[in-house]
Amino acid sequence: MSNLPEPILNLINAFQRLPGIGPKTASRLTFFLLRGSDDLPEKLAESLRSLRSATHLCTECFNITLADREYCEICADPARDAGILCVVEEPLDVMMLERIDAFRGRYHVLHGVLSPIEGIGPDDIRLKPLFERVKAGNVTEIILATNPSMEGDATALYIKQQLASIPVRITRLARGLPVGSDLEFADHNTLLRALAGRQDMS
Amino acid sequence: MSNLPEPILNLINAFQRLPGIGPKTASRLTFFLLRGSDDLPEKLAESLRSLRSATHLCTECFNITLADREYCEICADPARDAGILCVVEEPLDVMMLERIDAFRGRYHVLHGVLSPIEGIGPDDIRLKPLFERVKAGNVTEIILATNPSMEGDATALYIKQQLASIPVRITRLARGLPVGSDLEFADHNTLLRALAGRQDMS
Repeated sequence: MSNLPEPILNLINAFQRLPGIGPKTASRLTFFLLRGSDDLPEKLAESLRSLRSATHLCTECFNITLADREYCEICADPARDAGILCVVEEPLDVMMLERIDAFRGRYHVLHGVLSPIEGIGPDDIRLKPLFERVKAGNVTEIILATNPSMEGDATALYIKQQLASIPVRITRLARGLPVGSDLEFADHNTLLRALAGRQDMS
Repeated sequence: MSNLPEPILNLINAFQRLPGIGPKTASRLTFFLLRGSDDLPEKLAESLRSLRSATHLCTECFNITLADREYCEICADPARDAGILCVVEEPLDVMMLERIDAFRGRYHVLHGVLSPIEGIGPDDIRLKPLFERVKAGNVTEIILATNPSMEGDATALYIKQQLASIPVRITRLARGLPVGSDLEFADHNTLLRALAGRQDMS
């Protein structure tokens, strides 16, 4: 490694700081970029430079939006039902849910989950604005779409408890066997959930 | 996807042009970079900008070196044996071989392999300079370290034939079972090679 030119080492090191990218992948990406003669390194550099400066959070739902806009495209869309809020952990989750093109309500992005181990309490994520949105009325259903993990479950439970006095329907995304998967490879807890949540065939 | 701000879409699209990075990984990397508050996007952008402008090929072995140097660090090192040339396909291969810290000779980077299907002939890769280096004398052994693939084998064979009249030892990296692997999972050709190339135990 020591005899690699510094510009190459710098990029390998930077790539390695990304999640899921180890030394080998970082090297492969770097040498791929070095080899080509297209504009990819410039395109990437340009996009990286404007990534944060050109975006900020929607003041309503905390999803990502352009820096010169107050609301994200979803909150600004009058066709989206303001009565159903889908609560997610990260902006990436909004993207994933939008991809299935089946939800016509609005979102609320928490930007994290409750995690006593990491010292993340209710004031560290966007919970208060969520409660304010719900208490302002008009919301009839809250879909808690935090991850099906220990932290995601705890956060969903906390939200449910805090809103106990508000007459609003609170749901959670279904747990069970992933579509196209094999029962044989399902883990203990997934199988337990799939059995407990079994549904009548129509 | 359509309701993602353009700066985010741009970066996702640029990431997707990298090898082995699909839409999901590209999105995850982008949102990871968006979330953090460190200097990683700037560091990456900076490294990408200087990657090609700050480097070029060594005039001797065609490995990557700094733009203001004629020779790479290996060619410039008088302690490296100029009598043994290790021929590789790509600069990344040099890095991989240097990592094991066992080869004290020099390299020759072909920047490709012969591939009639892709229309890559002997003049399209750095073969002529290799033959010139060998014919200039001083070289006693050539280790052909092109990949153990059809194209890598064909390229190695071509080099061997072209140098038939030169009194130089020509070797190829050993083929066999990967260390730490399981015989049970070895493919047909690897097992054939391992058997044919069996060695006396000392």
